Amino acid sequence: MPAEPLFKPGLQDVVALETTISFLDTESERILIKGFDLIELSHEVGYVEMIHLLLNETLPDSTQTENVNQRLRDANGIPEEVWSILSLLPKATHPMDAQRTALSVLSGFDQDLNDRSVETNVHRAYQLLAQLPELTANSYHLLKGKQRIRSDKSLSYSANFLYLLTGKVPSKLEERIFDLSLLLYSEHELPNSTFAARVIASTLSDMYGALTGAVSSLKGQLHGGANEAVMNLLLEVGSPERFVELLREKLMNKEKIMGFGHRVYAKKMDPRALIMKRALMDLSEHQGDDRFLRMCEAGESFMEKEKGLYPNLDYYAAPVYYMLDIPIALYTPIFFCSRTAGLAAHVIEQHNHNRLFRPRVHYTGTPYSSI
Amino acid sequence: MPAEPLFKPGLQDVVALETTISFLDTESERILIKGFDLIELSHEVGYVEMIHLLLNETLPDSTQTENVNQRLRDANGIPEEVWSILSLLPKATHPMDAQRTALSVLSGFDQDLNDRSVETNVHRAYQLLAQLPELTANSYHLLKGKQRIRSDKSLSYSANFLYLLTGKVPSKLEERIFDLSLLLYSEHELPNSTFAARVIASTLSDMYGALTGAVSSLKGQLHGGANEAVMNLLLEVGSPERFVELLREKLMNKEKIMGFGHRVYAKKMDPRALIMKRALMDLSEHQGDDRFLRMCEAGESFMEKEKGLYPNLDYYAAPVYYMLDIPIALYTPIFFCSRTAGLAAHVIEQHNHNRLFRPRVHYTGTPYSSI
Ligand SMILES: CC(C)(COP(=O)(O)OP(=O)(O)OC[C@H]1O[C@@H](n2cnc3c(N)ncnc32)[C@H](O)[C@@H]1OP(=O)(O)O)[C@@H](O)C(=O)NCCC(=O)NCCS
Ligand SMILES: CC(C)(COP(=O)(O)OP(=O)(O)OC[C@H]1O[C@@H](n2cnc3c(N)ncnc32)[C@H](O)[C@@H]1OP(=O)(O)O)[C@@H](O)C(=O)NCCC(=O)NCCS
Repeated sequence: MPAEPLFKPGLQDVVALETTISFLDTESERILIKGFDLIELSHEVGYVEMIHLLLNETLPDSTQTENVNQRLRDANGIPEEVWSILSLLPKATHPMDAQRTALSVLSGFDQDLNDRSVETNVHRAYQLLAQLPELTANSYHLLKGKQRIRSDKSLSYSANFLYLLTGKVPSKLEERIFDLSLLLYSEHELPNSTFAARVIASTLSDMYGALTGAVSSLKGQLHGGANEAVMNLLLEVGSPERFVELLREKLMNKEKIMGFGHRVYAKKMDPRALIMKRALMDLSEHQGDDRFLRMCEAGESFMEKEKGLYPNLDYYAAPVYYMLDIPIALYTPIFFCSRTAGLAAHVIEQHNHNRLFRPRVHYTGTPYSSI
Repeated sequence: MPAEPLFKPGLQDVVALETTISFLDTESERILIKGFDLIELSHEVGYVEMIHLLLNETLPDSTQTENVNQRLRDANGIPEEVWSILSLLPKATHPMDAQRTALSVLSGFDQDLNDRSVETNVHRAYQLLAQLPELTANSYHLLKGKQRIRSDKSLSYSANFLYLLTGKVPSKLEERIFDLSLLLYSEHELPNSTFAARVIASTLSDMYGALTGAVSSLKGQLHGGANEAVMNLLLEVGSPERFVELLREKLMNKEKIMGFGHRVYAKKMDPRALIMKRALMDLSEHQGDDRFLRMCEAGESFMEKEKGLYPNLDYYAAPVYYMLDIPIALYTPIFFCSRTAGLAAHVIEQHNHNRLFRPRVHYTGTPYSSI
């Protein structure tokens, strides 16, 4: 028998590819994005600047930022057929699945679908980033039997997105916090969804294919689906004491607690979670309601003491989105919208320096026998 | 600087997971599927028996085979809304994208969507295998502005599938060869699409998510898309001499030749290709037309001499499908239909022994600088 092949379940710590886009530098505790630290970026720039950084290599000056805003505002609208299709989906459809269907349908409207040049891929990415807020918000409204909301082009990208989600023009504080959440979610090295997108793109399949794969990945509870799961947990309990009780029970039953843990930040707090926690503090103070903040803090210190586990971004993003009045089922679809900036950058890099992903297995099944 | 991390582009030869489903045993030149050799299976059983082997561990006896046939015949039909949605797709939509949209839509009709138990997943797999032939064939007919074709339940699974594709009840020879192609395509260890499906399923996302990712992957020319590309090449040239000329030109321009090469069988012929070549011989003899056979043989020996590269399954499947009168744009969607048996087995195994896939990167971008 040959020696057991070396094998890391879940490809933990295996380097799968080279990238110039981003890196979780756990040694210096930085989330490097094109040379900048994500946390520092979050203090200095907004989501639109982040889009530019991810798709055009550099941080934009003010003229370039205005150009990006222009591109996002002037992109093609969503074809009427897409709305008709979304209206035909069964009402029980999960908004992530509706988002995936919409993306899949859009491929048929792309007249350069076979063009994988950087230029066309960048153009395609801007187009999708422009369309996704309306697509995502309205697919939900249609599933709920409500009217579509139309973009208000006088608002900023993030304010308009929030408006499309809630039907209300947000305050400056709400706009700032929502924009911050988009920035924090925009890119994060090689999580499962980004890996899935690159694996798919490596067959030279197109960006829509890579993105539909990423939506599907992000939907899972061990990944993006965690933010929705956290919120349902918080609402189920209603008080810090009962939250800790529930967490204790779940741990006793060896259940995983959504919103805690991270493959790469196993023994540290996700630095993005801290920024979102501050945003939750700001919102709680402003709305004079610290219910969720107190629950989350109780959960955080319990889990640290009990299991040495720390909250991830989803843990604090969930109550922030709740206090912004966003429907819970849209938390993960919003995560996808934001992450499309990073995903597009990765698909472009993959198409540009391609090698097909095709690993092997360790076979532990029945040995050969003739029939 | 730390040492360059070990890194295998495309995860070549990296063991990504353990499986009891299948293994390309290049040493003994066997494609092991649950302990049996795929080539031996292809002489003894058909696609329906293969479905049973993949989803139920053992080869079926005749009663079990009849049960599988029954399950495939009695599965739910396709909801009317799915047809309405497919009718709304722009006519330029690629059939793979239409297939992906249809699958994505179907998730909304699955009332046990959150149930990932083996039992439900197996049931779901049968359901999808029952629906895919109609879905795939008719999505194409609708894109072409034609009428839908309805299943003829008096025909076998493969004969009906071929009937749905071509509108003609196939001869026994055609039925046998099409069934053989489905069997050969049904499972093949860890190609890109199966890997993509398992990566996605590892977030605990559902089977529809994993399968939409797999369709997207399979569409790429370096993967399933090769069969379509091969056929277009053959039709472009029309004679063995001009085919060899074209291959020579392409090699001079450092282009890749679709239908040749394989990550795992780099220096040998894909054993499945040999079986398909024989089927092409049978068809050519029966139809008294060896045009494609002669072109393919000329290409095969040229590529072997010139580059030491061998044909893969797609190379011979393409002319076989052409001679079966199947529209070219459906070759890859058919590949997906067949592979759904293997993909479903992999998703079930992933859900059952899960660890999240989350590898790392080697960052080669700009070093850290403050903003
Ligand atoms: C993200 C996640 C999948 C990464 O985990 P991973 O690297 O695959 O590690 P494992 O799941 O193997 O966990 C390692 C250990 O920590 C424990 N652990 C990890 N996350 C846990 C959690 N959220 N709750 C309880 N225990 C947890 C595991 O039970 C395991 O303990 P054991 O060694 O005693 O069996 C995992 O932390 C998790 O499931 N978190 C909850 C989902 C979530 O919030 N996802 C969003 C991530 S941004
Ligand atoms: C399947 C495939 C992607 C596997 O390739 P891989 O393991 O990633 O290997 P690479 O693409 O790095 O190829 C290795 C070498 O063989 C050459 N090669 C491989 N397949 C080739 C092909 N089809 N035509 C010409 N050259 C080929 C490469 O050019 C490379 O040569 P180099 O080392 O001189 O640069 C590749 O063979 C291919 O692209 N084939 C055509 C598409 C196809 O038929 N796909 C269906 C597969 S079932």
